[in-house]
Amino acid sequence: MPKKIAVLPGDGIGPEIVAEALKVLNFINADMSLGLNFETALVGGAAYDAFGTPLPQQTLNLCKNADAVLLGAVGGPKWEPLAHAIRPERGLLGIRSELNLFSNLRPAILYPQLVHASTLKPEVVAGLDLMIVRELTGGIYFGQPRGIHVAESGEKVGLNTEIYSESEIRRIAHSAFRIAQKRRKKLCSVDKANVLEVTELWRNVMAEVGKDYPDVQLSHMYVDNAAMQLVRAPKQFDVIVTTNMFGDVLSDIAAMLTGSIGMLPSASLDANAKGMYEPIHGSAPDIAGQGIANPLATILSVAMMLRYTFNQPEAAERIEAAVNSALDSNVRTADIYSAGTTQVSTAEMGNAVLKAL
Amino acid sequence: MPKKIAVLPGDGIGPEIVAEALKVLNFINADMSLGLNFETALVGGAAYDAFGTPLPQQTLNLCKNADAVLLGAVGGPKWEPLAHAIRPERGLLGIRSELNLFSNLRPAILYPQLVHASTLKPEVVAGLDLMIVRELTGGIYFGQPRGIHVAESGEKVGLNTEIYSESEIRRIAHSAFRIAQKRRKKLCSVDKANVLEVTELWRNVMAEVGKDYPDVQLSHMYVDNAAMQLVRAPKQFDVIVTTNMFGDVLSDIAAMLTGSIGMLPSASLDANAKGMYEPIHGSAPDIAGQGIANPLATILSVAMMLRYTFNQPEAAERIEAAVNSALDSNVRTADIYSAGTTQVSTAEMGNAVLKAL
Ligand SMILES: CC(C)[C@H](C(=O)O)[C@@H](O)C(=O)O
Ligand SMILES: CC(C)[C@H](C(=O)O)[C@@H](O)C(=O)O
Repeated sequence: MPKKIAVLPGDGIGPEIVAEALKVLNFINADMSLGLNFETALVGGAAYDAFGTPLPQQTLNLCKNADAVLLGAVGGPKWEPLAHAIRPERGLLGIRSELNLFSNLRPAILYPQLVHASTLKPEVVAGLDLMIVRELTGGIYFGQPRGIHVAESGEKVGLNTEIYSESEIRRIAHSAFRIAQKRRKKLCSVDKANVLEVTELWRNVMAEVGKDYPDVQLSHMYVDNAAMQLVRAPKQFDVIVTTNMFGDVLSDIAAMLTGSIGMLPSASLDANAKGMYEPIHGSAPDIAGQGIANPLATILSVAMMLRYTFNQPEAAERIEAAVNSALDSNVRTADIYSAGTTQVSTAEMGNAVLKAL
Repeated sequence: MPKKIAVLPGDGIGPEIVAEALKVLNFINADMSLGLNFETALVGGAAYDAFGTPLPQQTLNLCKNADAVLLGAVGGPKWEPLAHAIRPERGLLGIRSELNLFSNLRPAILYPQLVHASTLKPEVVAGLDLMIVRELTGGIYFGQPRGIHVAESGEKVGLNTEIYSESEIRRIAHSAFRIAQKRRKKLCSVDKANVLEVTELWRNVMAEVGKDYPDVQLSHMYVDNAAMQLVRAPKQFDVIVTTNMFGDVLSDIAAMLTGSIGMLPSASLDANAKGMYEPIHGSAPDIAGQGIANPLATILSVAMMLRYTFNQPEAAERIEAAVNSALDSNVRTADIYSAGTTQVSTAEMGNAVLKAL
């Protein structure tokens, strides 16, 4: 049976970077006879402009019937005045939630070629290789009640609810422990258990699930300290597991440690390794259409797709090795440019990876 | 009328660093005839051990009747098994809330002598001088409902509520704009307005209050991007204003940029500049009792107290200049030690500041 990939380029630089990732994926697909096929649909602001909703039913159906989703990015200032329910971000959040993609993997790897692109000192970041496991379908992103209402006093009040059940915490805990088992066997759970009861439950459930994984060393850290430790000594971490909201912030810090958020892929998985794959960075409306965005995060997201959903580790490794070779050949998009390297466009970077394959 | 300061050393390294700050304050008090007097009380774990509560009524009364509070730090692993309502942190949070200290000022200044203590490259951080204004008595820290309960399904569910009213946002907005007016006139409001309605209201009120301050340039940034920008290019910021929860995380990142969280003071003010002053760092139980903690954050908190509550800018500047001289004389506590400097104890660092006064 052919395997189906839903391709959602989205907004801003989304279409440009997805085009490069597809070049790479098409090549590997043919070369290794993987039998993947693709269908494209609109999501986010692009879908709103065409259909008045960021997540049209046909897009959601396509995703539900696909084995994997490749997404570019959504959002931009153009749609900021819209009400919450119809913003581009709701397209992305809707897919995460409807497809039950609760386990979001965000690796932060510093390529040796890019040590000097990091704003941190080489001795602090060289060799960095950590993984953030972010809970993606719960917490304050989806909790009810939510909204803005008018209080008795006549003034407006804004409200969101951070909520986690034991079972939600348990399943992301198992994901994280299993990932840690395949790595350096250290898991740091990040919470704010000293202030927020919801994360006190988080901490307790993590500790309980940890008993099933005696080979993994579990530690707990408050989120403020974790953010600080990522800047102070990031190499102390192997795998970090945390809530939806804290994961949003910590993964952007971790991404930046590697020199550019333009390098980092992500996978969002359900319980059966069906998944959505997207770069960590956003739609970067300021540089959209200029052909200067870095496609490597999206190309590396394709590698994650091949590894996690299609169980093709060899294909994944070929792509990762090709990215490495492209960097070795000294081509750089603007975000990772440094003196002595050659600055190239989005398409030229895609071609460099293709050539190295 | 004499001016009264409530002194709450708290837990861990709290008593050690407060002792040094008091040395400095006593000297300035006598030397400049400021007429300040002091009364000490227990808070946090120390208060729990003595009275079974982290915020005894007599401590709260003392704080309410004082003009300013000097706090060390609270908490430690010893008290982590306690229920939320009686944890050391509740002592601190209780004072913030009961005294209405809604405006928390957290400057992040990189001393030229410590450029090499930062994990960031000198060209990225040298000259850093930013101020985080954190809302301190609202948001998810205090929102109701909260707690852990058993759902119908039989499993536990944890819950906290992030809530802000227009008036809560408006008053912190005014604080932040006024501070920006006295600085480089740039204010960045940090939220997650694309996902959380509570921070959509935050953004709208900030924009509305901004109309009263046409001389200040207001911008808005999502929290994930702000965390990343603090690592990428922190000098782009002048004043940052944000919620209680986001401010907790961002201020620790900002602190770490300056090389050590042991350097950074804070002020928590009510509407009449009555305030609590404390270092940003915590009680550091791992090094408590060893006499190696850095007292400079607490000493600099005393300078903030003299400036904001007692309107003694000259006294504040004298202390800040003395800290600067102490650093010039090359003495360093362990956290800021680097080759070529002299490592000293907590008390020796306090003495070095005293000598420079
Ligand atoms: C675009 C936005 C809704 C999203 C999030 O907050 O999850 C993004 O920041 C991310 O991290 O994937
Ligand atoms: C100790 C803790 C309750 C406190 C907070 O979260 O506000 C601390 O981290 C801080 O930043 O002052």
